Amino acid sequence: MKYRVRIAIKPGVLDPEMETLQRLLKRSGVSDIQQVVHTQQYDICLNESVPAEEAERVVRALAEDVLANPEIHEWTIEAL
Amino acid sequence: MKYRVRIAIKPGVLDPEMETLQRLLKRSGVSDIQQVVHTQQYDICLNESVPAEEAERVVRALAEDVLANPEIHEWTIEAL
Repeated sequence: MKYRVRIAIKPGVLDPEMETLQRLLKRSGVSDIQQVVHTQQYDICLNESVPAEEAERVVRALAEDVLANPEIHEWTIEAL
Repeated sequence: MKYRVRIAIKPGVLDPEMETLQRLLKRSGVSDIQQVVHTQQYDICLNESVPAEEAERVVRALAEDVLANPEIHEWTIEAL
């Protein structure tokens, strides 16, 4: 059983990593880049023996408690 | 003009972050997760005035020189 978790900064929240990247690019003379939006994707394989409901519960907990920061991130779960 | 760069660890190369995550999960009693594959996605917006060829060159250089580590990552560029 496989799930895909995608995590991105919430709209309106500053992404310090991407701000730094854009500053670095400007300083290096690259002025053509307007915006960089970063998304993290985690493909999570679970043992086949796990019931679908339990699997989704485990993946949801992983996304909420470990991978994402609910204060600044939005995230989606998709069964593959 | 918009491009999507996707970066992942090359097959066969250990991903220390994901190894740590899997160890942490096992130690927390979560034994149902077999594997976690991490991919980074960057959506890059360029000024409309940049010619397509130049835009692709800039994005390619950004991926190769800044975002990815060619020793351990594989990456793709896609025009959106």
